[in-house]
Amino acid sequence: MKAVIFDIEQGQNEIVLNEVQAKQLDLGLMDRVRLLLRRKETNAIVDHCEQCVKYGEIGLFTEVAKALGAKKGDRISVDLAKRPESLDFIRKKLDGGILKESEIKAIISDLLAEKLSQAELASFITAVHIAGLNTDETVALTKAMISSGEQLNFKGKVVVSEHSIGGVAGDRVSMLIVPIIASLGILIPKTCSRAISSAAGTADVMEVLCPVSMSIEKVAKVVQKTNGCLVWGGALNMASADDKLIRIRNPLRLDPKPLLLSSILAKKKAEGAKYVLIDLPVGRGAKLADVKMAEDLGKDFAVLGHFLGLKVESTITDGSEPLIETIGPVLEAKTVLETLSNQYDHGLLEKACLMSGIIISMVKGVSKEEGYKIAKQQVSSGKALAKFREIIAAQGGNGNVKPEDLKPGKFKFVFKSNHDGKVEHIDNRAISRICRALGAPQDKRAGMLILVTKGEHVEIGEPLFEIYSESRDKLDYAVEQLEAVEVIEIERIILDIV
Amino acid sequence: MKAVIFDIEQGQNEIVLNEVQAKQLDLGLMDRVRLLLRRKETNAIVDHCEQCVKYGEIGLFTEVAKALGAKKGDRISVDLAKRPESLDFIRKKLDGGILKESEIKAIISDLLAEKLSQAELASFITAVHIAGLNTDETVALTKAMISSGEQLNFKGKVVVSEHSIGGVAGDRVSMLIVPIIASLGILIPKTCSRAISSAAGTADVMEVLCPVSMSIEKVAKVVQKTNGCLVWGGALNMASADDKLIRIRNPLRLDPKPLLLSSILAKKKAEGAKYVLIDLPVGRGAKLADVKMAEDLGKDFAVLGHFLGLKVESTITDGSEPLIETIGPVLEAKTVLETLSNQYDHGLLEKACLMSGIIISMVKGVSKEEGYKIAKQQVSSGKALAKFREIIAAQGGNGNVKPEDLKPGKFKFVFKSNHDGKVEHIDNRAISRICRALGAPQDKRAGMLILVTKGEHVEIGEPLFEIYSESRDKLDYAVEQLEAVEVIEIERIILDIV
Repeated sequence: MKAVIFDIEQGQNEIVLNEVQAKQLDLGLMDRVRLLLRRKETNAIVDHCEQCVKYGEIGLFTEVAKALGAKKGDRISVDLAKRPESLDFIRKKLDGGILKESEIKAIISDLLAEKLSQAELASFITAVHIAGLNTDETVALTKAMISSGEQLNFKGKVVVSEHSIGGVAGDRVSMLIVPIIASLGILIPKTCSRAISSAAGTADVMEVLCPVSMSIEKVAKVVQKTNGCLVWGGALNMASADDKLIRIRNPLRLDPKPLLLSSILAKKKAEGAKYVLIDLPVGRGAKLADVKMAEDLGKDFAVLGHFLGLKVESTITDGSEPLIETIGPVLEAKTVLETLSNQYDHGLLEKACLMSGIIISMVKGVSKEEGYKIAKQQVSSGKALAKFREIIAAQGGNGNVKPEDLKPGKFKFVFKSNHDGKVEHIDNRAISRICRALGAPQDKRAGMLILVTKGEHVEIGEPLFEIYSESRDKLDYAVEQLEAVEVIEIERIILDIV
Repeated sequence: MKAVIFDIEQGQNEIVLNEVQAKQLDLGLMDRVRLLLRRKETNAIVDHCEQCVKYGEIGLFTEVAKALGAKKGDRISVDLAKRPESLDFIRKKLDGGILKESEIKAIISDLLAEKLSQAELASFITAVHIAGLNTDETVALTKAMISSGEQLNFKGKVVVSEHSIGGVAGDRVSMLIVPIIASLGILIPKTCSRAISSAAGTADVMEVLCPVSMSIEKVAKVVQKTNGCLVWGGALNMASADDKLIRIRNPLRLDPKPLLLSSILAKKKAEGAKYVLIDLPVGRGAKLADVKMAEDLGKDFAVLGHFLGLKVESTITDGSEPLIETIGPVLEAKTVLETLSNQYDHGLLEKACLMSGIIISMVKGVSKEEGYKIAKQQVSSGKALAKFREIIAAQGGNGNVKPEDLKPGKFKFVFKSNHDGKVEHIDNRAISRICRALGAPQDKRAGMLILVTKGEHVEIGEPLFEIYSESRDKLDYAVEQLEAVEVIEIERIILDIV
C-alpha cells in the first residue's frame, strides 16, 4: 500500500487505514499488523479513518515512518501480525509459572520489535509485581535488557559507577563523585536521568553546563579523554527495553523489586562497570520508608550483581530532607560549582566524599576512612574542580564557567513565615511540586532558594524561601500552589482554633 | 486551544499538540489531559507533532471530537488530568486487597470516562486473573457494569434469556430458542454477539435475514410486538464498561472467571431477564476442557445470579464438533430456516429443544421432559417458524425469506480425502480458520459445507467438504491454508514413512 506520512508522534507504533479497506482486510481497530518496506520490518496498531487516508493508502505516524525509513509514496506491505509467542510466556507468568531464560529473552525481544501492546506489557509487569521473579529469572531479565541496547567497553580498565534510587531534592552527589573518582585515574562513565516528577535530575542540571545528549561513540571519547562523563542515559540506546517498561510502570507507580534491580544493574553493566555503589535514601518522603527495607534491597542488589559479575555495595542515607538549599537546574549547578571550588560546604560535599571513599576502597583495597580522606583531598586541592571543568569542556560546554554566571529566573517571590516556631521539616515532595509549577526542569532558571535550616527558630514574617521563574504566569501559579502545600513545616503548639 | 479535527478512529481517546507547546505545558507523550468544551468533558492521551497542529491549536481525533461534540475552530480547554483515584484501588487489588463496592464503582466509572489507560486496565484485569475477586466484589462489579449502560425493562412481565460461552461452529441454537420461547408468549429479548475469531456469531447470521443493529427503543418495540428479538448487543449501550474490558482481555486470552461471570450476567440483567439458561460446551477444541470445570462454572453462575436476583441454570453440552454441516453466515441462516421448516433434522434442533425445555420448565414449573415436548411441538406445528418470520419482519427484514434464496459464494472448491479411513474428528478451530480466510463473517456468503459425519468411512478421492467465497483471491488463500490445518481428521494406521 502507498505510504502517506503524518508528522504525529504517539509514543507507540500506529498506522491508519481507510475503514472500507480495513473491513475488507478484516483488520479491526487496535489490531496489530506487520509492515515491510525493503528490508525493514516493524509492527503497529491499526487506526481507521473515513477520508484522510484513501483506499490503497496507508497512513504512517512518525514512529512507524522512522522505523521503516519510509517516505511518502513508498509501497508498504501490510499483513496481520502473527500472535507473538511471547504472549504465551507472559500468560505463563500470570498463571504462576517460572520463566526460562529463552522465554524472558523472547518477551524482551518482542517488546523491542513493537510486537507487544502497552496493555500486554502492563499485564507482564503486574504479574511480576504480584508473583515476583526468582533470582534466575531476574538474572535472565537483566541480561536480556543489557543485550537489548548498546554497551560501553573499556577493555581491561577498571570501571566504576554509582546510582541513587532517588527521591531527595538537590541530591547532586554524582556531579561531585564523577570528578573526584575520575581525577584519581579511575574510569567512571556515568549515565544520568532527567527528572520524572522532581525539580531536576542530574542530566537536567549537568545540561546547564554542557550538552548531555550524545552518541555512545562520543561518550566513549569523552571518557577516554577525561576518565569520566555525566551524560543523559535516555539519549543512548542502552538497555532500551527498560525505558519502555518504565513508561508503563509510572502511572500505577509499579516498581516491582525485580524490575527495579534489573533496570539499574542493566544500565551499570552497559556502562562497562565492575564496581558499583548504590545509594538508598531512606526516611519521610523518600522512596524507602525505613532502614530495614533499604538493607533488604541492598542485599538483593549485591546478589544480583554477583550473578552479573559486578561487585555492588549500597549506602543507606538520610533522605528525608533536601541535600542543598538551592533547588532547580541552574541553582543546583551553581551550588555544585561552588562546592567543588571550596566556596561552600554543605551535606552535599560530605555525602559525596563518603560515597567516593567507599568506591575508592572497593577499587584500591584501602579502608573506607582512607578512601574518604583521599576524596576530600581531591576536592580541597582543586583537582576535582579541574577534572569537572575538563569533563564539561569535553562534553562541549564552557570549562571556564563561574558560579556567578549562573543566575535564577527574573521573576521572584519571597515566602514568609506566618507564625513563630522551630523548623521541623523541609519537604522534598512539596519542593518538587512547587518547582514543577515554576517551570522546572524545562525552565532551567526556575527553582527555589531555601533560607532556613531544620531546627532553626523563625519569627513571624521571617523569609523562609524564595522562588524563581522566567515566566510571570508560572510564578503566579506556583504562589497559588503554595496555599495547598507546606514546604517548610514550623512546629506549632496550637494547631487550630475552632 | 483551537480545535482541528482529524477523521481518524483509534479505539481510544487521543489528541495532538504542537511539540513546542507541549513542552511548555510540560505535557509529555502519552500524558493524560482533561478536555472541556461547554459542558462536555473527556480525557485523552497526548500525541506530539511538529507541524500538522500549530501552536495554539489542538488536534482532536474522531473519538474525542465525538465525546466533546467538537467542531473545527471550537475553543477547547486543556489541562493535565488529575491522577484518578481509582488507580489507588487498582493498586490495592494488585497488592492483594479486597475492594469495597464504592472502589469497584470508581474503577468502572473512570474506565467509562476514559480516565484509565489500556495499560492501567490491563493491570487491573491481570490482578483479577491472579488474585481473583470474592463473591461480594464480583457482585459489586456486575452491578457497576449493569448501571454503566442502558437497560431494558418490561414491567411485571416474565423475561427469560439464554447465552452460550461459545466455541462451537454452527451453534445457532439461539435462533431456534428465541422463536420457540416467544411463540409460547414468554418474553425473550436476546442480544447476540458478532464473531471474534470464528466464522460467524449469531448476530452475523441473523443479519443475513434482517438488520440487527438498532437502538434500545427499537428493540423494546420489537419485543413488545413479537415477544422476542435477536439483535447485536454491540449496537446497544448495555453494560458498556464490559465491552471496553473485553477488548483488553482478548490478546492475552485473559478470561478471569469473575470477569467472565459478571460480563455475561450483567448483559442478561440489562436485558431485563429473570430466568437465564447458560450453555457450557465442553470437549476437544471447546473453551472448557472437561465436565468438572463446566460444573464449577455452572455453580458460580448460579451463585452470582442469586445475588443479582436471577434464576440461573446451566447446560453442559458436547462442544467438540460443529453442530451443523453448514458454516458461514448465509449457510447457517439457511440451515436455521430449514430446521424451523421441518425440512432438516440435525443436532441443532435437538439441542435447541432440550434447552428450550429447560427454560419452559424454569418458567412454567413443568418437568424438563414436558418442556422439551412443548418445544418440539412449537417447531413441528410451524408456530416457531411463524414467530421467527414475525421477528425478522419486526426487525426490518423480509419475513417471507425462503431457504433456497440463501446461496453461498460463487467461487467454490471441493476438498477430497487423500486416504481411506474412518472420520475421527471434525475440528471447530480449523473450520473457523478456513472460513475466516474465505472472508467470513464480512463476506456473508463465505463458508463451508461439510459432506461427511464422524465415524463414517471415506475412500481416497471422496469429497470431504466444499468451501465458498465471493472472492477468487480469498478462495485461493483458503486453499493454501488447507495445507496447514486438518479440518477433517481421518483415522490412519501408518502415520508416516521415513
